[in-house]
This record gives sequence, structure tokens and C-alpha cells, in this order.
Amino acid sequence: MLYVKTPEEVLAMIESEFAPLGQTETVPLSDAMGRILAEDMAAREYVPDFDRSTVDGFAVPASDTFGSSDAIPAILPLQAPVLMGQGADFSLDEGACVAVPTGGAVPWDADSVVMLEYTEDYGDGTIGVAKPAAPGMNMIFRGDDVYPGKVILHKGRVLSSADIGALAAIGQVRVKVAKKLTVGVISTGDELVPPEVQPGPGQVRDVNSPMLEAMLTAFGCKVINYGIVIDDEALLSDKVKKAIADCDAVLLSGGSSVGVKDAACRIIESVGTLLLHGIAIKPGKPTILGKAGEKPIVGLPGHPVAAYFITKLFVQPLLGRLTGRDMTAYTVTAKVTESISANHGRAQYHCCRLTEKDGQLCAQPIRGKSGLITTLAGADGYFCIDRDCEGLPQGAEIQVTITGGV
Amino acid sequence: MLYVKTPEEVLAMIESEFAPLGQTETVPLSDAMGRILAEDMAAREYVPDFDRSTVDGFAVPASDTFGSSDAIPAILPLQAPVLMGQGADFSLDEGACVAVPTGGAVPWDADSVVMLEYTEDYGDGTIGVAKPAAPGMNMIFRGDDVYPGKVILHKGRVLSSADIGALAAIGQVRVKVAKKLTVGVISTGDELVPPEVQPGPGQVRDVNSPMLEAMLTAFGCKVINYGIVIDDEALLSDKVKKAIADCDAVLLSGGSSVGVKDAACRIIESVGTLLLHGIAIKPGKPTILGKAGEKPIVGLPGHPVAAYFITKLFVQPLLGRLTGRDMTAYTVTAKVTESISANHGRAQYHCCRLTEKDGQLCAQPIRGKSGLITTLAGADGYFCIDRDCEGLPQGAEIQVTITGGV
Repeated sequence: MLYVKTPEEVLAMIESEFAPLGQTETVPLSDAMGRILAEDMAAREYVPDFDRSTVDGFAVPASDTFGSSDAIPAILPLQAPVLMGQGADFSLDEGACVAVPTGGAVPWDADSVVMLEYTEDYGDGTIGVAKPAAPGMNMIFRGDDVYPGKVILHKGRVLSSADIGALAAIGQVRVKVAKKLTVGVISTGDELVPPEVQPGPGQVRDVNSPMLEAMLTAFGCKVINYGIVIDDEALLSDKVKKAIADCDAVLLSGGSSVGVKDAACRIIESVGTLLLHGIAIKPGKPTILGKAGEKPIVGLPGHPVAAYFITKLFVQPLLGRLTGRDMTAYTVTAKVTESISANHGRAQYHCCRLTEKDGQLCAQPIRGKSGLITTLAGADGYFCIDRDCEGLPQGAEIQVTITGGV
Repeated sequence: MLYVKTPEEVLAMIESEFAPLGQTETVPLSDAMGRILAEDMAAREYVPDFDRSTVDGFAVPASDTFGSSDAIPAILPLQAPVLMGQGADFSLDEGACVAVPTGGAVPWDADSVVMLEYTEDYGDGTIGVAKPAAPGMNMIFRGDDVYPGKVILHKGRVLSSADIGALAAIGQVRVKVAKKLTVGVISTGDELVPPEVQPGPGQVRDVNSPMLEAMLTAFGCKVINYGIVIDDEALLSDKVKKAIADCDAVLLSGGSSVGVKDAACRIIESVGTLLLHGIAIKPGKPTILGKAGEKPIVGLPGHPVAAYFITKLFVQPLLGRLTGRDMTAYTVTAKVTESISANHGRAQYHCCRLTEKDGQLCAQPIRGKSGLITTLAGADGYFCIDRDCEGLPQGAEIQVTITGGV
């Protein structure tokens, strides 16, 4: 017997029932943005690979400048300058200095760089230094940033543009990432017509197929959209079996009619194991989860807003689990603009619009009588009212998850 | 004479010197995720288009159930049921009720739906209703959600998956969006080698080209990468002119050598107008901005971390301006894990890693002596220390902009 589970129980079940697939591929750095790193990335060399100046100035042994001042500058003979992009694999002459550009290499026995501003070129092959240098001043030493073996990015990281820059810096031009999951999306319901069709009496457009395709593509999956299947158990069963054969995971977005959920349960039991029948959240209670072999099959509610939240809250973590993806997410703090009641006993999710007023972030819950997806157009994020909470007073502080992007 | 400007002055200059290009294209809904809406989107029809039930139950005129109770149920003759996906364009018989599934159409003169749980089927063609219904109960009426002319999404919106769902719901399967900008990226510097090449003495890998390509592609641009140009003003000038001809905007990421900035200024003045020479922030001061006709040319610092921040803080808003993009961004509140000093007089930006500790978000500034891009690997976001602030004590509350994604 399967009972309705809490969100925490469902997330724990996802961890225990599913494991990372471990399927990886190697892609060029130019295709790695947003991909999931499949191994810890360690540097194989020193960054920088030579001692560099951080300013335009003169490289010196600091000790040659000790005691210098505006009144009594240290006077140092000038050697031929270090050129940008060239090495400085030579020693300074005794007591001499050398001009070095920002980023340029510093010769072996110089240990500091005096900024141009504190020097004077006497024009006779000598430079006056008006301020004592301290060893290490205005320099970066070899390996200061990174050294061989230092892990700079951890497995599971979704690669950002700064990460791409870091990988370029260490010459990692090919990157091992998790293979993209292929996810099948099936919509069922006698009342559904494709979005481009004008609905007849009693019909509604299929919202879930295009919405799920957009969500999952942005989440980094390949999506196979199997379109609309009418409420016929045999047809639906055939389509689910085909999708299981083609894909790594299958999302079945149920019609609203009573029979579809039961049919979906029977179909899952005929191809694998039913794990879950119902989650104690609103919207989204009539959610089912099963697996065929290691492949998850999720029966989403037909109601688009419910399908949206179930996908955000459980399907993305499930797909994240299969790819070893770091699922850390951050919330912003906002004050709710109006009081809001809640169903005691079920975690309740609301989309909201965010505005700033006197430096304070305000969250306007999006309600609308019907709760249809059109009311969510323009939403900036969502928040949850805990199952132990009977509602929120106006001005209560809430944590909003921002939904731009995916 | 051009002076160093504050970040606020630079953002105001972007607004005054550049205008939306107004170039649009129409894409299928399946390609609209993440694109910038080019016009207000108004519904052209009612959603829902018919009165619907929100539960499985029996549609009734509420007045026929007034006064009913468990002890004395209202007994109503049952008509042939409404089927899912079919209209209910008929009247109820006097005093009768009709079975309606969740989402099903409700006949004209029923004004409420009684949930299955509160009814009993006597098996003789009559139904007992044990609870009085209120008019409108468990129903969504035509147009409750959306009606013709109602704006559901505003121009400039970056389309999210919920927006895609809403557009599907109103049958908007083709969407007018801002055309993608083509941005040219040029790296200059004698010391640069491509990331796949092992740097020789005094050389470093070109980090900015791949990093900027990743950032701008994720931001929704097409990027033309012109590769590395050596510090030769004539060569650089030719390359910039070619990029201006090919692209909507050009980013020139300068080498670290002194001459490159001056050359970039002269090149911009030879093809257009120099608007800005220096921004009072750290890192990123040596930034230049100009325009050739309406096309912006940005001279980024060669230092990858500085180039990263200038792109986040000014180039993305500039490209947003050209496309009419809503640039609203949200920050999370965190406590800084260690005290940090700042340059009084310049806004100072730091990348950080975020961790949660006892329900409190903590921001660990990423410093590293060199400030090279490898230290930013794994950054979760960044924060700013105001120019009027001399530093932050450990535990100070800061606002962190999350950087995953772009």
C-alpha cells in the first residue's frame, strides 16, 4: 500500500532509489558552459608560470632601495627592459634595475617592483627610486594562484563563465561532463488539443508539453516530445514503453480525468515498480513516481501549475541525481504584500511577483481564482508555506526562489 | 577631456548614449525560452473558454441543495454525464444534476459543483446531496483567468518556462522577440597564446576570449570570436573595423601593456566617438567605451577578473539596453566570513563562495594574492563594497549577486 508522502520523504526516496548514471562525455571548452562537471578538475601546472609584475615599474632587489626617500633617492643603473610576452631568464647586474610592464616577467634576483610613480629616469642610464621597496611588493610569484594538483572545481559543478575562464587559464580545453539526459514527455487527456489548435467545446490546449520541454531544455536535457495521447490505456501503455526504450526518464503528464492516474499506475506496474502515489503538497498532490529498471517514470498532475511545481521541486532534483548535479539553490528574502491563508497539513506553494519599495523586496502572491498557468505569466519566483503553518500575515518575511532561467 | 566616471555615471551614460535597436524576429514557441519579448503580449481569447469544474462531482443549481444535510439530503435526478473534452451546451432538467469530471464543462444553468465526497448515488437514477452548495462553488468561470486584451507579459521580459506555458495556454505559438545581438570579441596582447597552447617564457593563455564567449552566449548573444591580435595598432585597427562591420557591438579585451589602451582610444576616435576613459571601480578601472555610429565598442581590461566584472556590471546592461531587455536582478543576503578592507574612493567588487551554517548564509570572499581568474573558479556570486566604505568587519551583512547561469 502506497501512502501520500511528505516532500522531504519524496526527496529522500529520490536519493535512495536512484543513483548517478555515471555517463560522461568530453566536450571542447567552448561547449562546456552550463554543463555538469563529471570529475574534480585539478590544475596540471603553475598559474602564473613565472614571477610577474602587477604594475608598470622597475624590478629591483628590495634591499638596494632600503633607506631611499624623495630627498635621497637610491640611484640604480638601468638594464635593457623586459618585453611583454618574453621571459626574463637572466640575473640583474649587481645593483641594477630593469623596466617591467604590468604582467611582465621579473628577472630571477629581483624580488620587488617599484611603481613608475616613485621613480625618476635621469636620462643617463640610471633610475632614481624615491621610496624603499619591500620584498614581494607589486609581484605575483609562480604558482601563487594555482599549483599542480590543486583542485579548482569539484565534480557536479554546473560550469559558469568564470569557471570557463579558469579552465582556459590552466589550458583545460577539453572538459569531461555528464552526458545530457534524454527525457520523454507525454501528455494525456481527451480534452487536450495542441497549442496551435483553437479548442472546441470542452477542450483546452496542451500546456504541459511545451512548458516541460522549455523547462527541461533550459535545465540541460534533451527532450523528446511524444505529443498528446488520448485516454486509452493500451495506447498510453505503448507510448510509455516506447519512451522508456528511447529515453533516460519519462514524464507522463496526466489528463484531469479520474481514470488516467489509475491507468498510469497500472502501466508503471506492468513495466517496473510503483514507488509513490501522492505528495502532501498543494498544488501537486496527485503525483506518481515509479521506475522501469533504473529509469524513472513520473506521472505529473495534468493541471499545468501543479505540473510546474512538481517539476521544479522533484523532477529537477531527480534528474540532478541521475547526472550527479550540484543542486544548491539560493532564495531571496522578501515581505509578502498581503495576508495569505494555507491548508494546514500540506506544504503550499505560491508563485509571486517581486517589486522593490524603499529598499525592501516585496512579494506579491499570484493567485487568481482558477490558478491556471496564465496567472503565472510574469512570475519572478515562488515561495512555500509550511505544512505546519496556517497562513501568513501581511508583511511576513518569506524566502523566495527566483525562477528566471529554468 | 575624459574623466574617470563612477559606476552610476557609466550606467546613466549607457542609457543616454544608446537606445534599443528595435530589431525583432518571430520564433516558434519551442524556441522562445530565454528570449526577450519584443511587444506586450495580450490574450486574444478567454481562458478558460467555458465554465469548468475544479473537482469530480455533480453540477447543480446551488438553490436546489439549500437546506440539505446528512440527515436530510437533497435528492436530485441524474442526467447523462458530461464527458471530458466535450461541451456541455445544454440545460439541466428541472431539479436535476449531472456528473462532471475535474476540468469538465458545466452546463448552462448549473452554478456550482458538489464534490463526490458529499454525495451518494442511490443507484436508481438519483443522487443524494448531503451538504448545501454555494453559487460558484468548485467552478472556474469563462475568462476568470484571462480575457481578450488582458496583457499577460510585458515587453522586455526574458521568457521563463512558466511564461512559455502561459503562451501555450492562449495559443500564442509564434512569439515576437528581440533579434539576437552579434557581438565581436577581440583579445590583444603580445603575451597571449590560445588556451590550447603551452605558454612559453613570459606568455599567458588568452582567458578572456573563451570566458567572454561563454558569458555572452549564455546571455543570449551570438559571438564572433576574432581571436588574438598582437599589439600592433594597424593590425588592431583593421580587426576592429572588420568587427564593427560584422557585429552589433565589439569588445576589445586589452593586453596588459601600457600602449594598448592608448591605441584602442585612437582606434575608437578614428571610427567614431570615445565616450569614457576609466571607471572608478576595482577591479576594472582601465575600461574605455566608445561608439561607431550606434554600435558600442568597449575596451575591457586585459586582466580576466577585471574583464569579468566589467562585462557583468556594464557590458550586459549595455547589451540589455540595445535589446530592450528587463535587467532586474536580485541579490541574496549573507554574512561575510572575514573582515575585508577596501580602497576608499572606488567601489570594490569581490567574488565569493556561499555556504549555509545554522540556517545563515555565509559569504567567503575569494581573494588569493594574484586575483587571477583561477581563484574565481567555483565562485557562487559577487558583492560590492561601496566607494564610501573603508571595509567590512567579519559578520557584516552583504548583498550577494548569484552568478550561476551567466
